[in-house]
Amino acid sequence: MGGSPIGSAVVHSTFSVERTYPTTPARVFDAFADPARKRRWFAEGEGWSIDEFVLDFRVGGSERSRFRFQDGPPAGNDTVFLDIVPDRRIVFAYTMMVRDARISVSLATVEIVARGDGTHLTYTEQGVFFDGTDDGTNRETGCGEMLAKLDEELAHHP
Amino acid sequence: MGGSPIGSAVVHSTFSVERTYPTTPARVFDAFADPARKRRWFAEGEGWSIDEFVLDFRVGGSERSRFRFQDGPPAGNDTVFLDIVPDRRIVFAYTMMVRDARISVSLATVEIVARGDGTHLTYTEQGVFFDGTDDGTNRETGCGEMLAKLDEELAHHP
Repeated sequence: MGGSPIGSAVVHSTFSVERTYPTTPARVFDAFADPARKRRWFAEGEGWSIDEFVLDFRVGGSERSRFRFQDGPPAGNDTVFLDIVPDRRIVFAYTMMVRDARISVSLATVEIVARGDGTHLTYTEQGVFFDGTDDGTNRETGCGEMLAKLDEELAHHP
Repeated sequence: MGGSPIGSAVVHSTFSVERTYPTTPARVFDAFADPARKRRWFAEGEGWSIDEFVLDFRVGGSERSRFRFQDGPPAGNDTVFLDIVPDRRIVFAYTMMVRDARISVSLATVEIVARGDGTHLTYTEQGVFFDGTDDGTNRETGCGEMLAKLDEELAHHP
């Protein structure tokens, strides 16, 4: 069993990231639901090696990814989907691991709404951090970068 | 697929409930881990009918309960355990349902620490509420009542 060293405190954190995309809610939703699209913007990227990426997008289904950044340690993300409303909302819990240790567990809510000619996305993460190296600040930065990659995905594969 | 009516907003909420029990961390932890004990304080109670209670306490394991309060509608709780550190920490995500509709998804952290001759428990819930009837206030009250039932369990079955 992984987990943090005995005696360490945990930190709870909540943040939201908002973005507007010049496309339809259905296309934004599809970028989360389609395994090939999700892998492209969520897992792939310069300097990243992907050892595994499997997406089973349904309530109760899971997403599993294993990856390394440059010469860094093996890391992983285990996600379980808990609520899906097509074209509108996705709620999932995910665990981040470095080597075999769980470093955080988060509940994420993706809300998708039409706004004008585009689509407004609000990503809210409520997380608990175990390892003392992040209080949610780094995670918020990382999620912002991730959603910027979704910008590119939607621009290049509309 | 359940979920809230199209167009409704979701509400995110975080709260903590703290209690101190006059027993050891191991006994408090065991009240969450042992199916018979967990069922007794968590599911049973005057006015409640339990249609199903199954607990598989391990990381990746689930807890499933189906119940009714008096003449109320069938309700359910689907839990998945995401992090377990024996005698110290339990992290799980759970979905609450009324009839077939999901009304909330929450991430819960149970922290257990020895304090003096007893054990201090901090329950932190980070949730998202779908149905517009609760902004987390009712849930916080309910969780406080639940942990008071754990008081009784520990007193009567030390």
